[in-house]
Amino acid sequence: MTDAIHRTDALVIGAGPVGLFTVFQCGMLRIKCHVVDVLDNIGGQCAALYPEKPIFDIPAHPSVLAGDLIDKLSQQVEPFAPVYHLGQQVIGLTRTEDGRWRAETSKGTVIEAAVVMIAAGAGAFGPNRPPLKGLEAYEGTSVFYYVTRREEYRGKKVVIAGGGDSAVDWAISLSEVAASVQVVHRRAKFRCAPESAARLQELADAGKIELVVPYQLSALHGDNGVLTGGVLTGVEVADLDGGTRVLDADVLLPFFGLATDLGPIAGWGLAMERSTITIDPTTGATNVPGIFAMGDVCHYPHKLKLILTGFAEAAQAAHACYSLVFPGEVLHFQHSTSAGVPA
Amino acid sequence: MTDAIHRTDALVIGAGPVGLFTVFQCGMLRIKCHVVDVLDNIGGQCAALYPEKPIFDIPAHPSVLAGDLIDKLSQQVEPFAPVYHLGQQVIGLTRTEDGRWRAETSKGTVIEAAVVMIAAGAGAFGPNRPPLKGLEAYEGTSVFYYVTRREEYRGKKVVIAGGGDSAVDWAISLSEVAASVQVVHRRAKFRCAPESAARLQELADAGKIELVVPYQLSALHGDNGVLTGGVLTGVEVADLDGGTRVLDADVLLPFFGLATDLGPIAGWGLAMERSTITIDPTTGATNVPGIFAMGDVCHYPHKLKLILTGFAEAAQAAHACYSLVFPGEVLHFQHSTSAGVPA
Repeated sequence: MTDAIHRTDALVIGAGPVGLFTVFQCGMLRIKCHVVDVLDNIGGQCAALYPEKPIFDIPAHPSVLAGDLIDKLSQQVEPFAPVYHLGQQVIGLTRTEDGRWRAETSKGTVIEAAVVMIAAGAGAFGPNRPPLKGLEAYEGTSVFYYVTRREEYRGKKVVIAGGGDSAVDWAISLSEVAASVQVVHRRAKFRCAPESAARLQELADAGKIELVVPYQLSALHGDNGVLTGGVLTGVEVADLDGGTRVLDADVLLPFFGLATDLGPIAGWGLAMERSTITIDPTTGATNVPGIFAMGDVCHYPHKLKLILTGFAEAAQAAHACYSLVFPGEVLHFQHSTSAGVPA
Repeated sequence: MTDAIHRTDALVIGAGPVGLFTVFQCGMLRIKCHVVDVLDNIGGQCAALYPEKPIFDIPAHPSVLAGDLIDKLSQQVEPFAPVYHLGQQVIGLTRTEDGRWRAETSKGTVIEAAVVMIAAGAGAFGPNRPPLKGLEAYEGTSVFYYVTRREEYRGKKVVIAGGGDSAVDWAISLSEVAASVQVVHRRAKFRCAPESAARLQELADAGKIELVVPYQLSALHGDNGVLTGGVLTGVEVADLDGGTRVLDADVLLPFFGLATDLGPIAGWGLAMERSTITIDPTTGATNVPGIFAMGDVCHYPHKLKLILTGFAEAAQAAHACYSLVFPGEVLHFQHSTSAGVPA
């Protein structure tokens, strides 16, 4: 079913931190926004993947949890009442006869806007899943790719698979609450921050964590009940010679990185470099007039993939798009200390 | 007296919000900093001119007082233990034989650094002072150019001079605590945000503020005691025909804007546009190798003079200067969520 057409000033694609701040900067210039995101909630990876991780380099936040960062940004955009269209992807984008943009989403929502602001980060994302028979049956009940609430692992027998920062950081963190933590990695050496590796070894030496190396996941044991969701009892692992052992487990956490996908955006005729969109670093303009990009999705020489850099890119794009949203009007720049937040 | 030479990685000129965040970003890359500022305290204009003004466009701070912003940034840089040299200006900057920079300050402090980061904002600043006979005697006791603590005006007879945002905003604010507020302006119309002008007129209609227009300051009345500081009793104002009246006053607040001065920086051979330094917008590099600039002092096409933009410029300059500070070392980029804050 196709809804009535939504008409607005700016269509923002992506509701992560940079998408939200784009709404704020547009709002300060009285540019109204609709926001589309493939996830069911705002906040992007910050909210979905690591809400309890502290971030240290947001200016004037010595330490802020990723989830709290999203809460504060959400509060900051509230006066501008953006309209969110969540759980859907922009699948089609075309020019209208009068030079505006018409977007259609995977749910049939149609949005017309003067400008399009792409703050899609790394694109839609999902876990790299291990090739284990019957895996699907356990996903969401015994197998998880992200830890959102540490407390849910209290008293559980946890098997973690992977050798990067996520695997190591969560092994260290969960060892404080879990009944047991075993880390399966195909090499003896972990690819993580040196301090984390040292801490992991300390906990292993103290018997708080078992390092199951070099081993790979080979099978899941348990009751893969179709209706109720699978209940894991053990994780089978194999060494390089094919020898196996079974680890007692309530939960398996495979941390093999993210698979990301820009999806339909890659087909809109935008100048791209690998999976990022080339922009003018001082305006956020892409090669297509009326389409701007900001945050991790954009690219220019020396680009830093920092959230704070995305914030500044959002500000410049909001200013740069002003003349397209309000043709003929001159933007009188005012500081927020004088102008306040527009009602 | 010349102190021993201080040797460091980066010399940061300016301890305003952007200078402080430059120290933070350098610190995250283990680049150590010394900071010079002409003021006696860190925080630049935020701390010196409007600590109690709310700022609305710092990301993830829906509203933050300028003074609190500085407190939070100061806390954020603390782990990196920057060395501050306050109440002094860099007056000389020369290349050493081994390609480093040697700076000398107005107090004789000598600092040698691999790179120089200029975050000087609008430069040293001071008020535009009205041409009134004997003015100096009252400055600091009855005549003030900045309001730092609103409470100090409770119960006072306040005369405000000027017609811009500062004059109008403080007239509105102080009318809540002062015994009386009179605003002297040479025109009937005020050059400020429309909402503020409307609010001012409301308060004038309600008898809470008197608009003394069109008038100009002509003389100060009071006891200009040389040892104790002057005590104001009245402010004489003149209309365009030379007619005068005397306003009862405990305090005069002239708001005629800021006079700013980049000072010696303008003589360092940096490519400049008016009183700003031209930089590469993606690295912060000036035309002089080893000298970078960030924040309001820098210039490139479409540059926005926003604090948050300066934060992002600080990050890119810290990354861009890395190879000069640590020649031959490769910078392995890490997110703060994985790497934390270096000890």
